[in-house]
Amino acid sequence: MSRFSVTYGIRASDPADARARAEAIALEQTVEVPRAVVPEGHIADEIVGRIEEIGSAGAGVYHATISYAPDSAGDEITQFLNVIFGNSSIQQGIRVIAIDPGDEMARRFPGPRFGIAGLRRLTGRRSGGMISPVLKPMGLSPGAFAELAAGCVRGGADIVKEDHGLAGQPTAPFRPRVEAVAEAVRKANAAEGRSALYFPNLSGRVDEISENLRFAKQAGAGGILVMPGLYGFGVVDRIARDAEFDLPVMTHPAFLGPYVLAADTGIAHGVMFGTIQRLAGADISVFPNVGGRFGFSAGECHEIADHCRDAGGPGRPILPSPGGGMSVDRAADMVRMYGPDVVYLLGGSLLADPPRIDRAVAAMRRAVDAADAAGA
Amino acid sequence: MSRFSVTYGIRASDPADARARAEAIALEQTVEVPRAVVPEGHIADEIVGRIEEIGSAGAGVYHATISYAPDSAGDEITQFLNVIFGNSSIQQGIRVIAIDPGDEMARRFPGPRFGIAGLRRLTGRRSGGMISPVLKPMGLSPGAFAELAAGCVRGGADIVKEDHGLAGQPTAPFRPRVEAVAEAVRKANAAEGRSALYFPNLSGRVDEISENLRFAKQAGAGGILVMPGLYGFGVVDRIARDAEFDLPVMTHPAFLGPYVLAADTGIAHGVMFGTIQRLAGADISVFPNVGGRFGFSAGECHEIADHCRDAGGPGRPILPSPGGGMSVDRAADMVRMYGPDVVYLLGGSLLADPPRIDRAVAAMRRAVDAADAAGA
Repeated sequence: MSRFSVTYGIRASDPADARARAEAIALEQTVEVPRAVVPEGHIADEIVGRIEEIGSAGAGVYHATISYAPDSAGDEITQFLNVIFGNSSIQQGIRVIAIDPGDEMARRFPGPRFGIAGLRRLTGRRSGGMISPVLKPMGLSPGAFAELAAGCVRGGADIVKEDHGLAGQPTAPFRPRVEAVAEAVRKANAAEGRSALYFPNLSGRVDEISENLRFAKQAGAGGILVMPGLYGFGVVDRIARDAEFDLPVMTHPAFLGPYVLAADTGIAHGVMFGTIQRLAGADISVFPNVGGRFGFSAGECHEIADHCRDAGGPGRPILPSPGGGMSVDRAADMVRMYGPDVVYLLGGSLLADPPRIDRAVAAMRRAVDAADAAGA
Repeated sequence: MSRFSVTYGIRASDPADARARAEAIALEQTVEVPRAVVPEGHIADEIVGRIEEIGSAGAGVYHATISYAPDSAGDEITQFLNVIFGNSSIQQGIRVIAIDPGDEMARRFPGPRFGIAGLRRLTGRRSGGMISPVLKPMGLSPGAFAELAAGCVRGGADIVKEDHGLAGQPTAPFRPRVEAVAEAVRKANAAEGRSALYFPNLSGRVDEISENLRFAKQAGAGGILVMPGLYGFGVVDRIARDAEFDLPVMTHPAFLGPYVLAADTGIAHGVMFGTIQRLAGADISVFPNVGGRFGFSAGECHEIADHCRDAGGPGRPILPSPGGGMSVDRAADMVRMYGPDVVYLLGGSLLADPPRIDRAVAAMRRAVDAADAAGA
C-alpha cells in the first residue's frame, strides 16, 4: 500500500542534529514512544515514520521527507492531519513544507467535488476572474443583507459571500438571514438573467451543523462558507463528501494565522491554504491578499495560488480567493498577478454607499473584464 | 448587557501606532469594514469593539483591552473565538494575553461539568496528584491495549488515557478497542477495589461523533479525550453540555502548537491551555511539560497551571495535565512545581516492559504519594 509523505523544514545545528530531529518526528507523529520500546514487526516496519530523504536547505535549515503508512492515519482527515503535524506542531523550528498523499491517501481523500471547472459551470463564468462581494457588517437585519445581496447580483457578482463573522447574532440569526438573502439572490438572478451563487457562512453548534446545511441547501444557497480553523477540517471533508448537499465549499482563514506566520515553524502558506484545503475538499480557498490589511507577501500569495491550482493535485484544482486590498485601480495588477482562475473578494470598499453597491460591484466587474481582455 | 473583553499584546512603534493597531483590531474582529462606513446607531455604538484601556508594556509592546458585545458572539463557542481572534490571528505582532468573559458570556459558557472537585469525586483520589498512564503505541490490537490498561489499573492509575494518535486504525478500530479496554478496566477496578477512569480518544468523522460518544459511554468509558486543534473547540463545548453523556473531558494540544510558539503573536500559553479550555468546557487540559521533548519553559507551564486552577474562573477550576518528562526521579520536583491538583501523564517510559507496566505505574504512584506526603 503506497505510503504518504510529508516534507518538513527542520532547524538544526548540523546534519547529525537534523537527522536526530527527523528521527524524533518519525516517532512522535506515529507511535510516540522511544525507538527502544517500539514493538518489532508491523509496528516497527510499517507504522513508524520512515526518513526517505534528508538534506541541507541553507544555513541551519534542513529538509526531511518522512513517509507514513496510510494505516497510521486511517480514513479520517483529522487523524491524517494528526499524523502530518499533531504533536510536532508544538516544536519550535519544524515546518510542514510539502505533503504528498500518494495513491492510497489520494483515493481515501478525493478532495473537492467541484473545483475550478465545477465553479465555472455553476456560475456560468466561462473564463476570467470571478468576483465575490461580501455581505457585512454584522448587526444588520436579514432584510438589509438581502438588499445588499440583490445589489451585488445586479452589479455582476459571481458569488455573493457572507462575512465570516455572520453567525447566530440576534439581529440576523442564521435561518431567517439565509432565507431572506437566498430569496433576494434568486429574484435578482431571475430578473437579470444571471446565475450568481450565494454562500452563507456556516454557523451553529456542532449538533446543528447538519441541519443548518440542509436548511441552507433547501433555502437556495449556492454553496457554503466554512472556517476550518474554528470548525475543524473534518467539517469541510464532511460537506465535500455529502452527495445530497452537493454544493461547493469556500474556506475562510479565520483563526488559522498562527500556522503560517512564523518563518520556520508551523505550516507553509501554500500547504495550509492550498494542499490541505484540497485534501479536505474545499473548492475555493480564501486567504489575505498582498497589499491589504494583512502582511502576506506577493511571493506567499503566489505560492498559495499555485498550490490551489496545481494540476498535479491533490484532487481537482481549486480557486484561490485573495481577500483585501482589491480595488478598481489595482485590478490590472491583480489580474496580472493571479491570472484568470481566481475569485476576488470585495469587502468594505463596496459599502461607502450601500444603496449603490450595484455600481461599485459593476465597476469592479468592468475593471477585471478589461484587464482579462487585455491579457494583462 | 455586560461586555466581554480581550487583552491583546500589540507590537507597535509608538503610542499612536499602538492605538491605530488597537482601533484596527476593534473593527477587524467585529464589523470588518473601515470606520467611515460603519452604520450609525446600534452597530457603531455596541457592536464595534471598544478600546477600554491601552498602555505601554515594555519596548515596542503595548497592551490593549478591547471590549465586545455579547451579541457579536452569540452563544456559539466558535463565533466567540472568532470575535476574540479570528482575523487578527493572521496579523504579525498581536497576541491574546487575557480573556475576561464578563457576566453575560460566563452565563452563556458555564464551562466544565466536573472540574477538579468533580474529578476527585469520580476517581476517589481525595487529595494529591493524579497519575494517568497512556495507552500506546498505535498498531497494537484491542486485546493488547486491554492488557496494558488492566496493568495500569493494578498499578494505581487514576485515569487510563489513550494516546491521541489512536483513531480508526484497522489494527484497533474505535469501537472494538473501546469495548475491550473498558471491559478490562472495569474488571481490574472490581478486582482491585479501585475506580480508575478510562478516557478513550474521540475519533471518527464529523457525523460519527455523537454516535461514538454514546458508544463510549455505554461501553463504560469514564471520560473522553479530545483534540480541539483538530476537531474544533465546538466539539469540547458540545460534550460538556451533554447531560446524557455526563462524563469529564480531557483536551489534548495536538495541532495547537503554532498558537503559542511565537513570542508576540498568537495566543498566550495560559490563555490557550487554561482560559479557552475552561470556556469550552474541558475538565483536564493536557500540555507539554517542561523538561520533556517539548520546549515549554517552567514559567510557561506555571502560567498554564495557574490559568487552569484560578478560582476566579471562568467556570470551575480544572486540572492541568503536564505530559512528557515525568519520571520517578523527577516526581518530587514535579510535585513541588505543580502542587496537588494535577494529572501527570505517563508515556513511553512505562513501556520498557509492557507485561510489567503495573510495576512501573506503581513506582510512579509511590513517588508522587511520597512527595505529596512530604509536602514537597
